[in-house]
Amino acid sequence: MKKFNKPHNGENKDQLIIYGRHAVLSALKNPKRQIHKLLITSENRAEIEHTAPNLSYIVADKKEFARILGNEAVHQGFALFCSRLETYDIADLIALSEQRGQCHILILDQVTDPQNIGAIIRSCVAFDTLGLIMQDKNSPIESGAMDKAAAGTIEFLPIARVTNLNRAIENLKQAGFWIIGMDGYAQTTIDKINKSGKTAIIMGSEGKGMRRLVQENCDTSVKLPISPNVESLNVSTAAAIALYELNKK
Amino acid sequence: MKKFNKPHNGENKDQLIIYGRHAVLSALKNPKRQIHKLLITSENRAEIEHTAPNLSYIVADKKEFARILGNEAVHQGFALFCSRLETYDIADLIALSEQRGQCHILILDQVTDPQNIGAIIRSCVAFDTLGLIMQDKNSPIESGAMDKAAAGTIEFLPIARVTNLNRAIENLKQAGFWIIGMDGYAQTTIDKINKSGKTAIIMGSEGKGMRRLVQENCDTSVKLPISPNVESLNVSTAAAIALYELNKK
Repeated sequence: MKKFNKPHNGENKDQLIIYGRHAVLSALKNPKRQIHKLLITSENRAEIEHTAPNLSYIVADKKEFARILGNEAVHQGFALFCSRLETYDIADLIALSEQRGQCHILILDQVTDPQNIGAIIRSCVAFDTLGLIMQDKNSPIESGAMDKAAAGTIEFLPIARVTNLNRAIENLKQAGFWIIGMDGYAQTTIDKINKSGKTAIIMGSEGKGMRRLVQENCDTSVKLPISPNVESLNVSTAAAIALYELNKK
Repeated sequence: MKKFNKPHNGENKDQLIIYGRHAVLSALKNPKRQIHKLLITSENRAEIEHTAPNLSYIVADKKEFARILGNEAVHQGFALFCSRLETYDIADLIALSEQRGQCHILILDQVTDPQNIGAIIRSCVAFDTLGLIMQDKNSPIESGAMDKAAAGTIEFLPIARVTNLNRAIENLKQAGFWIIGMDGYAQTTIDKINKSGKTAIIMGSEGKGMRRLVQENCDTSVKLPISPNVESLNVSTAAAIALYELNKK
């Protein structure tokens, strides 16, 4: 699905195009979004007038949608031209954690597929993750494909983009976070970890895993117990299971 | 990704085209596959000659791959024309369960997206699921897109396609299986279920859930504990977490 890494017609550094019912309706409810233009197909009029009665919209046909989004995007007759969400600093996430006792953060090291990241965002929100941290370089910025996979949940998740992941990990340690790396070669399975207090869990890319320096910065490492017939799980599947475990009380 | 529901050039009722490194290399090692034709790009010669030294292959360029698979398929220079895997009967799965004490089966009710089903197959194999059951009508047959998402794991999983899902559930009950439905409105969370013995877990489609009759056939129902900010999880994510829990000893 390499195509989805390319911007759609009209996406640029100040604007993205969100598509799909859940993603668009959720973005419209977020006061932090600057709305530039909303395109819908005629059958979605009633739904938009109910959700955002004061918003003007343009009715477009499927051909116009295809011209903007290509033939593959499952847009369900919704396309929203709007601003990207502002990202957070590590200091912001640490400040949020100060109001909480047990909490967890997810760190992605070198995960690059926008659809995987979108699916991971959805799991973060489902399992009450405080925030998501990615390295600025090598991580895709917010895109329509990412938001579609997140199914509207990106509006609820603080996301920090950092220049140096190892420095971010140091900051988290100083703030009392326990740093856990996901590593297929670890001795301990994830259900055995101590979840009281503040934890940050790091997932590397599928296949390659975490970079060595990042791995050395972990306080401990854990694995998922999987069959030897499977080399690895998809990174978004592994993240979902890890976050599910961390969110257990 | 609707496109992937359409067959590729050369797919028909007796033949599918498997693409992608993991999926193809895994299929080549499965003696149950009838191999019709293998296409590779020239840089994959050494890998194929190592994996299947006696197999003849055709070297093709990227243009030829695109002609067969379209521009979107992430084929990594591997395309295998071969037979589909034979499916199992309920009786076969029950026979397999007789050699096991604690074991679990996954049942999908109305899940239609081939990529979701492929991802679910990968989780089934990762978490030692005895077999997968789908209703013949309304479930896609094995396809290149499904096998790509399964990343080579479909070779290891018994899959039964049944005419009547409720009758299959009855058969499983008679064989001593405890039938669990996944239902967002259930009282109990999945980590609280009794996993000793034989269990079959049923997942409905995203949004719609299980059909009413199927739901009424369950011995009990469980939910995943998710935040109210998320309507549901992706069906493949939910399945992965459920299978992970069922596989815990």
